[in-house]
Amino acid sequence: MNTKPSENPLIPIGKKAREAARVLARTSTDVKNRLLHAIADGLLAHQDAILDANAQDIADGKAAGLRANLIDRMTLTPARLRNIAQDTRNVAALPDPVGEEFDGRVLPNGLRIHKRRTPLGVIGLIYEARPNVTVDIAALSLKTGNAAIMRGSREIRRSNLAIMEVIHQALRKTDLPETAVQYIENPDRAMVGHLLTLHEYVDMIIPRGGAGLHAYCREHSTIPVITGGIGICHIFVDASADSKQAIPIIHNAKVQRPSVCNALDTLLVHQDMAPTLLPQVVDRLARDGVTFRAEERALALVGDHPAVSPAGPEDFDTEWLSLVLSLKVVSNLDEALDHIREHSTQHSDSILTNDWRNAQRFLDEVDSAAVYVNASTRFTDGAQFGLGAEVAISTQKLHARGPMGLQELTTYKWIIVGDGHVRP
Amino acid sequence: MNTKPSENPLIPIGKKAREAARVLARTSTDVKNRLLHAIADGLLAHQDAILDANAQDIADGKAAGLRANLIDRMTLTPARLRNIAQDTRNVAALPDPVGEEFDGRVLPNGLRIHKRRTPLGVIGLIYEARPNVTVDIAALSLKTGNAAIMRGSREIRRSNLAIMEVIHQALRKTDLPETAVQYIENPDRAMVGHLLTLHEYVDMIIPRGGAGLHAYCREHSTIPVITGGIGICHIFVDASADSKQAIPIIHNAKVQRPSVCNALDTLLVHQDMAPTLLPQVVDRLARDGVTFRAEERALALVGDHPAVSPAGPEDFDTEWLSLVLSLKVVSNLDEALDHIREHSTQHSDSILTNDWRNAQRFLDEVDSAAVYVNASTRFTDGAQFGLGAEVAISTQKLHARGPMGLQELTTYKWIIVGDGHVRP
Repeated sequence: MNTKPSENPLIPIGKKAREAARVLARTSTDVKNRLLHAIADGLLAHQDAILDANAQDIADGKAAGLRANLIDRMTLTPARLRNIAQDTRNVAALPDPVGEEFDGRVLPNGLRIHKRRTPLGVIGLIYEARPNVTVDIAALSLKTGNAAIMRGSREIRRSNLAIMEVIHQALRKTDLPETAVQYIENPDRAMVGHLLTLHEYVDMIIPRGGAGLHAYCREHSTIPVITGGIGICHIFVDASADSKQAIPIIHNAKVQRPSVCNALDTLLVHQDMAPTLLPQVVDRLARDGVTFRAEERALALVGDHPAVSPAGPEDFDTEWLSLVLSLKVVSNLDEALDHIREHSTQHSDSILTNDWRNAQRFLDEVDSAAVYVNASTRFTDGAQFGLGAEVAISTQKLHARGPMGLQELTTYKWIIVGDGHVRP
Repeated sequence: MNTKPSENPLIPIGKKAREAARVLARTSTDVKNRLLHAIADGLLAHQDAILDANAQDIADGKAAGLRANLIDRMTLTPARLRNIAQDTRNVAALPDPVGEEFDGRVLPNGLRIHKRRTPLGVIGLIYEARPNVTVDIAALSLKTGNAAIMRGSREIRRSNLAIMEVIHQALRKTDLPETAVQYIENPDRAMVGHLLTLHEYVDMIIPRGGAGLHAYCREHSTIPVITGGIGICHIFVDASADSKQAIPIIHNAKVQRPSVCNALDTLLVHQDMAPTLLPQVVDRLARDGVTFRAEERALALVGDHPAVSPAGPEDFDTEWLSLVLSLKVVSNLDEALDHIREHSTQHSDSILTNDWRNAQRFLDEVDSAAVYVNASTRFTDGAQFGLGAEVAISTQKLHARGPMGLQELTTYKWIIVGDGHVRP
């Protein structure tokens, strides 16, 4: 935070990124796509080197006692590497948003004006132990003509460096500067702070990780940060909901992939629906290993089920990321809206209803990135929304909200063409 | 920066703003427009009270030895107040961007998805001694359904409080909460830091003032900040430029209003054009009081004119905001582009040329918010660009670049409508 710009040890990296960004901004879509295929080819051709490096990271991680789910996210396999390579080819196949011209018009004085979509410039990425993110964000940045500076967590340092070697080879092969993607090798945590204050050279910071990382970036960055990643998601089952649809939707939102941010955390049920619906929900989801934290009125209805325990004071403010579901009975839509307003992280919330006015009020009044009627919250995702790719899911309101695709890695410039025009 | 959220004394103001924002988000365009007219009416009806308060601020400012141009910006007159009232009515007349639905489509699985434009929520404004900004930003925020928290400089505290009284009366008259616009009365400078860390309640910070204020906000804010306001603007006169157009454009860009951010700071002239053009420029602009800072090659051509002195090492990195112009002769377009890349603040830059390829290269390679061909840089302005109003001029790349109008005070939510949809 208080590092003076002149003392920041990452300035040389920043300068090189800025230079590379200039080259990338003028690189044709064809060349950028060839680069992405070269990266995909390289990942497969150097599979052994990457998997060896990864095996060493995993061994160290196990020796250090990392949790099994973290080890799993760190682990590369031939199949996972093939998927990562295929994802890179998929990004190559997407339309390039750079260069698009829009909002064009002729002003009354004859000036011709339009906006042209351009790369942001340099993207800073700070992320946790997931080697697929290294390739993923590199591909999305390069496709949109941006340079990237990456800082991965030290647990996967060897894997990331092996991947970077592949990316650099592909850049050389495509006659593009290697500095288009740079990795901060120094594992000192202070480097994160230095990256966050490199505002003369970096245009946007993308944190990929948990709530702590996002809060840290928001607090310490002098560069615009895309915050998000925390989803305390709600489904409200209204009195008029179709109960045949409700159980599958709730099951899907909670069970299909509980570890992600768009998974269901809290189920709110209208008091008229609760006596019949809640026992069915508990029965059905408990079969798949879900346990429940029920507030008083819900507890009265399902408290005798062994998977149900009373909700504690923090439970409605917890993103479970696991097979736990908070339950609450509400008297009406207003109580549901009040609860969501108080506890939501403005990620994804859904109403199940057949009442037109209630659906409209929910859409109007729930101030979240994605607001649903009669569907699972699990759809909040770049690919599911048809963006083709996903950079991040923003829960802030500036620049982009919800799933961010390629276009959200761009900005625009105003172009004004005159013929001797002066301002009166 | 290190204030814990629970210790922030502005939390009550933040909570009230958030509550008011909920009401404003559901307020119809008609009511918002009525509110703006009520504010305009109130400014005229309470002219005496406002001018009295302003006279006290001015008297204190003079006693404290404030500079004349600052005193001038602080001063309200009946005519200026009428203009401010009229500007408010003009905002009422603009289309309301809130509620617009766009990017709608049906996904292959039948989910119907679109974006709906919504207010940002709560806008924090930190500004210098200009009472017109109080009304201006209040009007723009209210029109777009946003609540505002304002922190003006202490020099115009009495004027601002008199204006706030008018705004609060208008809110009461329109049955809207007074807390829709709140003013931080405590003059303690620490309040700025508290506002900048109120990220639980404030969605966007707009600084209106000089480079120092923008840098301070960027460094200390945990809320997204729209930075901008600094314009080191360039005109490059190419060898093929129409010299009859060039002089009026350069004169306009430098002289028409030298104190603003889109005014010209540095003139770059192609070496083939310089021997004839530079003496004309100096003669013409010196007549209007312009003085010049010329680098070596320019000095050789116009150094004998009394208005010309040698350029110092900082001069090409100075936003003059006054009748001073830096002069440089360049060998070709590349040297001009290099100079702009090194010294520009990415605000507004113009090329005067008749060479098609050079014009295209300039548009492609100059990475500024507004890039011009054959026109004065003075057009970079919300009203001039046809936005109807101007919130600020952004020189960052996220969210908005260049002049920001009403739409840039909004965000969007994704609305997804299903019929029992679950993710496979």
